[in-house]
Amino acid sequence: MATVLKGIEVVNSMKIKMMDDVNDLKSKGIQPCLAIVRIGQREDDLSYERGAIKRCEGVGLICKVFEFKENIDESSFINKFKAINIDENIHGILLFRPFPKQINERKVIEVMDSEKDIDCMTSGNLAKIFSGDETGYAPCTAEAVMRVLEHFNIDICGKNAVIVGRSLVVGKPLAMMLLKKNATLTICHTKTNNIQGICKRADIIIAAAGKARMLTSEFISDYAVVIDVGINVDENGNLCGDVDFESASQIAMAITPVPGGVGTVTTSVLAEHVVRAAHMKMITRV
Amino acid sequence: MATVLKGIEVVNSMKIKMMDDVNDLKSKGIQPCLAIVRIGQREDDLSYERGAIKRCEGVGLICKVFEFKENIDESSFINKFKAINIDENIHGILLFRPFPKQINERKVIEVMDSEKDIDCMTSGNLAKIFSGDETGYAPCTAEAVMRVLEHFNIDICGKNAVIVGRSLVVGKPLAMMLLKKNATLTICHTKTNNIQGICKRADIIIAAAGKARMLTSEFISDYAVVIDVGINVDENGNLCGDVDFESASQIAMAITPVPGGVGTVTTSVLAEHVVRAAHMKMITRV
Repeated sequence: MATVLKGIEVVNSMKIKMMDDVNDLKSKGIQPCLAIVRIGQREDDLSYERGAIKRCEGVGLICKVFEFKENIDESSFINKFKAINIDENIHGILLFRPFPKQINERKVIEVMDSEKDIDCMTSGNLAKIFSGDETGYAPCTAEAVMRVLEHFNIDICGKNAVIVGRSLVVGKPLAMMLLKKNATLTICHTKTNNIQGICKRADIIIAAAGKARMLTSEFISDYAVVIDVGINVDENGNLCGDVDFESASQIAMAITPVPGGVGTVTTSVLAEHVVRAAHMKMITRV
Repeated sequence: MATVLKGIEVVNSMKIKMMDDVNDLKSKGIQPCLAIVRIGQREDDLSYERGAIKRCEGVGLICKVFEFKENIDESSFINKFKAINIDENIHGILLFRPFPKQINERKVIEVMDSEKDIDCMTSGNLAKIFSGDETGYAPCTAEAVMRVLEHFNIDICGKNAVIVGRSLVVGKPLAMMLLKKNATLTICHTKTNNIQGICKRADIIIAAAGKARMLTSEFISDYAVVIDVGINVDENGNLCGDVDFESASQIAMAITPVPGGVGTVTTSVLAEHVVRAAHMKMITRV
């Protein structure tokens, strides 16, 4: 039976340090603040927003929600977004995507200051992740995976890491982050032949394909650490990952559950990025 | 015996299209121009420069060389570079690195317009390569590899591609470009255990480790296409690649030679980027 790598343990250890950092900032007159920018009321967004606010407020951050109507026109939205972006009291911005059709995503993101871009949407932060420059902000989910590996002392250097999925918010940035830690890296996707054989040779498997219970025990060796980034709803309406936890946990050495794994850590990384952005703003202002 | 994939064949086929494009630009009053910016006189740089000028002038481009003394101070250099960057008659800039110690690379690159950045140094172009946006400019060497594969109709989709080396000018951007073409991708490096076993399973091997004749026939299967990006000087002063051509060419299905392989194509890609930059400038000005 696999060791279950619980997100809450990572969250708790991050929380202690974060509260110290927030108190330190407050003692210097700085109140770290996250702006949440949302167009419309998609249920997924609202659910993530509730979790993010709870986590951020739990460590002493302020959260400001800016909600816009689904039919807002592009120039009005961009003007409002510019005002949020230049607000001195806002340190980080969480911007829900995708946008409605009438709004060009690139035009909005061009407006954003990369120092407030705490979820890696701007060119500046994407280029930093790509080049291995750790002064930028990685996408929160990708960094949450790294935090789980780090917290549980999973050895990365020289290990065969296999990522299933190649999105710009998880697969690709994680590839760069694992490479930076000296993993030998393989990226699989829908066009890959024999994903099963490739996963079977992996020391670390990152499931980020967005396909419910795609990776069963046949994909997994008894020395594998399995990190499940998927959040899917199965045919019975239950939350599940990209890994078939029931069968995989019989074989793997260690595995993250869904829910209660990587997803739990993501909002802590978000909060930490806000704290870091507030700190960076303070030290560059001096 | 492997098929030898000769760079000159790729170059010749690129040349015809490029001359047409240059003539078209000239007929509209535009003279595509490359600026070469070099500090000092390193022999490697001078040799690459000679090749680049010959290739560019061969298709009708203008080349302007800006040479600076090794001991130029940072602010003088940046001011001169700014002037080159804003010159309306210059469409692309080739900037030799590394710089001497007194000049901060990042400060210089921040000055460069990403539309003139034809060798992928700016955040804008790095972010585009990372996100799979083909409107940017890839590093010329990485793109030269893709051109060789394309010219010789090497199938990429679903194939196991293994890249040995993870630099920001070859390994990483090539990983993104091969992924975009649906390869299953593995990146190996100095910390990888069993590079030999990993290469042995590859359909496409990209050698970009910078280690003379590191990949011998034991690394290669009879179905492998081997692309050698290395340019090294061996103990007898001869130019050689990262692949041991003599033994590898006995086994591989196809292989690029060094010299005469990828390196030959790189300056053609450079010239093509200048032509594209001139074209883009024309259509955005209208």
